[in-house]
Amino acid sequence: MRIALGIEYDGSAFQGWQTQLNAPSVQACVEAAVSKVANHPVEVVCSGRTDAGVHARCQIVHFDTDAVRSARAWMLGGNSLLPDTVVIHFVQPVAAEFHARFSARARRYRYTIANRPTRPAIGRRLLSWVREPIDHEAMERAAQVLVGTHDFSALRTVACQAKSPVRTIHEIRFSRDGDRIHMDIQANAFLHHMVRNIVGSLLPIGRGERDAAWLKQVLESRDRTKAGVTAEANGLCFLGPLYPVEWGLPDFLTLPA
Amino acid sequence: MRIALGIEYDGSAFQGWQTQLNAPSVQACVEAAVSKVANHPVEVVCSGRTDAGVHARCQIVHFDTDAVRSARAWMLGGNSLLPDTVVIHFVQPVAAEFHARFSARARRYRYTIANRPTRPAIGRRLLSWVREPIDHEAMERAAQVLVGTHDFSALRTVACQAKSPVRTIHEIRFSRDGDRIHMDIQANAFLHHMVRNIVGSLLPIGRGERDAAWLKQVLESRDRTKAGVTAEANGLCFLGPLYPVEWGLPDFLTLPA
Repeated sequence: MRIALGIEYDGSAFQGWQTQLNAPSVQACVEAAVSKVANHPVEVVCSGRTDAGVHARCQIVHFDTDAVRSARAWMLGGNSLLPDTVVIHFVQPVAAEFHARFSARARRYRYTIANRPTRPAIGRRLLSWVREPIDHEAMERAAQVLVGTHDFSALRTVACQAKSPVRTIHEIRFSRDGDRIHMDIQANAFLHHMVRNIVGSLLPIGRGERDAAWLKQVLESRDRTKAGVTAEANGLCFLGPLYPVEWGLPDFLTLPA
Repeated sequence: MRIALGIEYDGSAFQGWQTQLNAPSVQACVEAAVSKVANHPVEVVCSGRTDAGVHARCQIVHFDTDAVRSARAWMLGGNSLLPDTVVIHFVQPVAAEFHARFSARARRYRYTIANRPTRPAIGRRLLSWVREPIDHEAMERAAQVLVGTHDFSALRTVACQAKSPVRTIHEIRFSRDGDRIHMDIQANAFLHHMVRNIVGSLLPIGRGERDAAWLKQVLESRDRTKAGVTAEANGLCFLGPLYPVEWGLPDFLTLPA
């Protein structure tokens, strides 16, 4: 049977989601824990890989197993075998056709900036830091030129392996809570480094150095060298994917019907 | 001249504020950095020591020096020499009679609990965790029996070295933000482990196992063995002390006139 897991992790402890030689990965941790509970080797497929230092509130994975275990046994057993930087939030049997990556119709990320004169010490690995006062409302207004279906070549890393540079951004919203600025973004999918390059290209606007017309030129240039620098990984958190309602996942992972 | 510093730190990296043999302390880090900027050995005096694992938003220290440096030089120099878990937020010359500890009239702490079925992975060292649903409003109501001037022997560790067990709590407030429960508490001063023992004695009330009458009995017993278990250090953050207005410290460290 096929089983879906919802997984939270603190990315600062890992060299990213994907298993690598000689570097700690979330995938390797999860597979080791689940394999032990299953009592056979398990491979997991995730909804979207995250880079080194990037966190996830609810990464979704699926795996196949013949082992007969209750949802509670997968969760308690798995969590007892995971380090304290990774936790399984929920376990759900799913249809054999469900695929954590291909069934997802959208992904949501949050980027958080500590906007203050001195670097943050508490929660440093969960935050980006910008010293100069920034205008998050100007960033939100300018960001609207990115919403919709576009060729995002200017905002993906040159190492990006996606076949098509076209993606559809559904929404970009900014909010401020004291010295914290949050950017919430949803798209059908993201290119490699796309969220961090969007933040890096909105920051000059937040500082008043650039405007929305410049961002439009950057996007239309399809030229990575025209955009801003990649914002640091610390501030980025994958909130989770969204699936059509028929897969029966929890509400916060389900698209409005 | 005497100089005051406001310092933020992530306590999970340290065995507490106070310098110890063979264990990392915030005090040793701060003294090493400030001594290097001053070019002479500096000892700092803090407003209140924190235990291993306890964080601080704005610990206040003072030190004496003959070195002539601008506030900016103390701050930038100091911060460049501190680890990323400690940061100096502000630097201010103060009167020679100012004393970080003895001039403080009140201290404020926040205790944060992740109240959810699974342990938190993101920010684990900044949070306490309670699995069972807890009623924070019941905890706030019951906590009011602690407000005022009392003998808090039942709520200090047996190792507490304070001469008097009498303290005055000014306010205890609870709030909830999603799965986070915050307790904000202000007192003239706190005994050793007092905040964590208060949380540990309010949790059985939040779970519905005890009531406010029981808490009153605990307080009046003056017997530590009657109170709840000490809540974990992770969730505790020292927000900072409060001083009379005449010392000229920033507003958020100053008592209302």
